Amino acid sequence: MAREQSYTRVPKHVGIIPDGNRRWAEGHGLQKSEGYAHGVPPGFALYEALLEQGVAEATFYGFTKDNNKRAPDQRAAFTQACVDAVELLAGRDANLLVVGNTESPAFPAALLPYANRRVRFGDGRINLNFLVNYDWTWDLRKLHTDGEIASRDISRIDLIIRWGGRRRLSGFLPVQSVYADFYIVEDYWPDFCLSHLHEALDWYQSCDVTLGG
Amino acid sequence: MAREQSYTRVPKHVGIIPDGNRRWAEGHGLQKSEGYAHGVPPGFALYEALLEQGVAEATFYGFTKDNNKRAPDQRAAFTQACVDAVELLAGRDANLLVVGNTESPAFPAALLPYANRRVRFGDGRINLNFLVNYDWTWDLRKLHTDGEIASRDISRIDLIIRWGGRRRLSGFLPVQSVYADFYIVEDYWPDFCLSHLHEALDWYQSCDVTLGG
Repeated sequence: MAREQSYTRVPKHVGIIPDGNRRWAEGHGLQKSEGYAHGVPPGFALYEALLEQGVAEATFYGFTKDNNKRAPDQRAAFTQACVDAVELLAGRDANLLVVGNTESPAFPAALLPYANRRVRFGDGRINLNFLVNYDWTWDLRKLHTDGEIASRDISRIDLIIRWGGRRRLSGFLPVQSVYADFYIVEDYWPDFCLSHLHEALDWYQSCDVTLGG
Repeated sequence: MAREQSYTRVPKHVGIIPDGNRRWAEGHGLQKSEGYAHGVPPGFALYEALLEQGVAEATFYGFTKDNNKRAPDQRAAFTQACVDAVELLAGRDANLLVVGNTESPAFPAALLPYANRRVRFGDGRINLNFLVNYDWTWDLRKLHTDGEIASRDISRIDLIIRWGGRRRLSGFLPVQSVYADFYIVEDYWPDFCLSHLHEALDWYQSCDVTLGG
């Protein structure tokens, strides 16, 4: 794939909030739960593009404790989509770290080998973090009990891209997001296309980095 | 003042990031430090409008530990602007809570009587929180040392409005902001006008509240 554009300032760490799977499904006459499976291939298209741009680290929002309030068929579908994504990723290059509360039954057993420790697939090349059964209160409470947050191995995020038009973090890594620039894509996540990433990277070049100074 | 518009869904708690004072000053041929004094009157115009809309709580971002890296004349100017704002507020109605690290010499002594405890002015009417020498790491570290965050008396934020075009939190209350919707005003803060608030409130009505569910 040809590099579409080169950037003078590429974020080291990109956060991905792939929202809108259920709204996409409804718009296509499908059950809400059917949207999640359509969210897996876009993740790999984005992964390839991030590798190509030399992004060092990316964090994907899988599902959260809050999401577990949803209907059982939706829970089953988003959990399966996360497992499928990791199984596909195992054939690629990535240093995978799954972060989430493994002590809850909502955490998929198939992902326990990757939980809270980084596992290398292929040649590595990019640090990929995947939030699975993540809960921001669980993350921060570890500061009280352990002296460090649970997501301590995830670095500060430079750019967060959220699909599906909503302009909020929805509990996404509150500590790592404190200085991140937010870019919102109106399209739903299953409608991902490369231009979304390029528009976000283009915009990011115009943001100064001050860290409050 | 006539109510310009009534809303079916008003946020209970609005976060205010009044950014762009220095850029505004430069655009008006002034020293950067001269921008901050021009940021005080807009705060009172906004306060009046929030009262009128029945907003129960508002948090204003004063200055942070990060901001203390700036030039001495700027530090003096933003600190004075915070002190002036509180002295003016003392003649109005508000339940004021100043949150910030009082153990650092950067915290203005004049604001110690309002620090980390809520003080009633006049008839109260609105809970006003003011972040002064605030530091998100200090806030969260209290979870480790005291079992609660330092800003524990500030409630969850529904809507954050940021002036000056930047799309980030810059360390603003990471815990209370986890589910907040972000509205960005391109104009600099000293150019505040009521239409900014009304556009934000109008947009907020279209946001659903899911808390991740």
